[in-house]
Amino acid sequence: MSPLRVKTISAPLAPGATIGILGGGQLGRMLAQAAAQLGFRTHIYSDETHPCAFDVASSHTSSRYDDEKALNVFAQSCDVVTFEFENVPDETVRFIEGHVPVAPNGRALGLLQDRLAEKNFVAGLGIPTAPFRNVESETEAREAFAALGGGPAILKTRRLGYDGKGQRKIASADSCVRAFLDFGAPSILEGFVSFEYEASVIAARARDGAFAAYDPPKNDHENHILRRSTVPAPLDQARAHEAVAMAKTIAEALDYAGVLGVELFVTKTGLVVNEIAPRVHNSGHWTLDACLVSQFEQHIRAVAGWPLNDAARHSNAVMENIIGTEADAFASFAKNPAGLHLYGKGEARPGRKMGHITTLTPKA
Amino acid sequence: MSPLRVKTISAPLAPGATIGILGGGQLGRMLAQAAAQLGFRTHIYSDETHPCAFDVASSHTSSRYDDEKALNVFAQSCDVVTFEFENVPDETVRFIEGHVPVAPNGRALGLLQDRLAEKNFVAGLGIPTAPFRNVESETEAREAFAALGGGPAILKTRRLGYDGKGQRKIASADSCVRAFLDFGAPSILEGFVSFEYEASVIAARARDGAFAAYDPPKNDHENHILRRSTVPAPLDQARAHEAVAMAKTIAEALDYAGVLGVELFVTKTGLVVNEIAPRVHNSGHWTLDACLVSQFEQHIRAVAGWPLNDAARHSNAVMENIIGTEADAFASFAKNPAGLHLYGKGEARPGRKMGHITTLTPKA
Repeated sequence: MSPLRVKTISAPLAPGATIGILGGGQLGRMLAQAAAQLGFRTHIYSDETHPCAFDVASSHTSSRYDDEKALNVFAQSCDVVTFEFENVPDETVRFIEGHVPVAPNGRALGLLQDRLAEKNFVAGLGIPTAPFRNVESETEAREAFAALGGGPAILKTRRLGYDGKGQRKIASADSCVRAFLDFGAPSILEGFVSFEYEASVIAARARDGAFAAYDPPKNDHENHILRRSTVPAPLDQARAHEAVAMAKTIAEALDYAGVLGVELFVTKTGLVVNEIAPRVHNSGHWTLDACLVSQFEQHIRAVAGWPLNDAARHSNAVMENIIGTEADAFASFAKNPAGLHLYGKGEARPGRKMGHITTLTPKA
Repeated sequence: MSPLRVKTISAPLAPGATIGILGGGQLGRMLAQAAAQLGFRTHIYSDETHPCAFDVASSHTSSRYDDEKALNVFAQSCDVVTFEFENVPDETVRFIEGHVPVAPNGRALGLLQDRLAEKNFVAGLGIPTAPFRNVESETEAREAFAALGGGPAILKTRRLGYDGKGQRKIASADSCVRAFLDFGAPSILEGFVSFEYEASVIAARARDGAFAAYDPPKNDHENHILRRSTVPAPLDQARAHEAVAMAKTIAEALDYAGVLGVELFVTKTGLVVNEIAPRVHNSGHWTLDACLVSQFEQHIRAVAGWPLNDAARHSNAVMENIIGTEADAFASFAKNPAGLHLYGKGEARPGRKMGHITTLTPKA
């Protein structure tokens, strides 16, 4: 795939225009619904046969992400293209960028697909991260473990991990080497950060540089999967402002257009950036029910060259994921006075995100 | 079309089931989006070639409402069927009822499609209506005008009117005859009701008889088209309860499942029912932004045999329709800190509802 000159958007897209979305999971599904609310058509491109986003989109294509012919037809049908997951091959995005504007930009995506590049980028902005070392050999595996003080650490593949996949806890130099050999891929060793809890900033940046962030939620995980987001997080105001400022610095440095999720460790001594997701984020799903404008609508607004809208929330919220066979209890969820969102996925595989449910309480 | 035995639903439909919707306008579109949120698939049936609801539905059929073959295929693909407009031929609904459960039921639809039957039904429940007379001949036209006291009145066709179509103001017996001859169809003469303002109740009734109503909005019309709904209406609490009680009485008498809209005149001496819409209603669109659960979700819940959800609103709201070429100013609407909903309709014909915008304020 030969990268061509990158296309950009100059005026806000008119309703009736088509927004292309790479990826057909629940994030693509909720993006397509937000796009439809603003009068846009959507075209979903996925390498799955019938992903759940197809059911709510105006049109869809099922093909490989390196199928240039299909990508070309897809690009021709769209006025702008975005993506719903960070593991879409960045070559795919760069190919499409030659035909039609893409947001967020392929450079930002490429950078954030590599945990090492991401960490170097964040650290280069003067923003705290976990201590980290590159691991591309057995020797580096040993050296990295020693360099991080020989304490507990986590080895992660540099690419393609999610929900704890491609991650392993490391307690010795030997186990670091074994994990690296098991992964068989360039990895990064991260020192363990002792945190009080995890939080995140869901923020949007428009093409004109405008920025809007939702109040940070506190995030609880189970088995490496997000269990629950509670907003507001118990951050004092100065800390909350600091968290949002970090997200703004990151978005500006990436010349970002769209929504991004910045995962944070809240420690006794300050905030540490854990990970940046160049997309709408699971810990922002509560915005569908607790805000006038959800993260999905903000993303579509940014992608379409529209102004962002107010990110204020009208209620406090607790968002709980519905995972795997938990979805079988739909009749019990249906009884809750809560915002219920089911993703229309057929098979309730273990660990699969099937939906979420958000409970609101009045803002204090 | 031969009416068969009517099918009913016994258990709540599981996510993944398909909800059929007759009609492909903005109401069908917003119903399809609500259905998708709960994990349902949708199949839209419309006699238009590409109505706006097709763009957000899992599948769609474009054919005539008397095409038994297409209706049969449609019915086979659905687990339950509903409709988004009251002018779907009731023969169509009764045909489908023989194959798959339909909600609201065809009997309620048939009754409410005829303004005379509707008025007789409401009056029979002891609920005030405007004075009315049936007009099926020139003689009846004269007699009706005299019987209503010779004052200002409105002649309406008994069937198929909406947004002021098939309606004419009458000031004399002669003009009543002329209007009747122009319409060339059975009509009803309604005495003019001197009202302070119009309000409406948007209410849902579940298959198990549970009932939930939103707080009544005040509705302002321009050129016979709804311009704006403001919630809450300036009704005192007793009057608001009375309005909701009327809607409940009506829904129960119809053995109704789904959302219905009851339009009311608020007069110095009390409430008068103007019209009943057996469907989600334009004056309930604010529920999308001001409530956890919108009228569209309530309707889908009722249709799918699910429990209703809480109809409380978290904010006060003003919903304004975007009509005809007003939609060209999308870039200006996009700047408002408001809930913007555009229906993805191609052509901005005069009087055509292209979208709506809802402004929220905190509840007093």
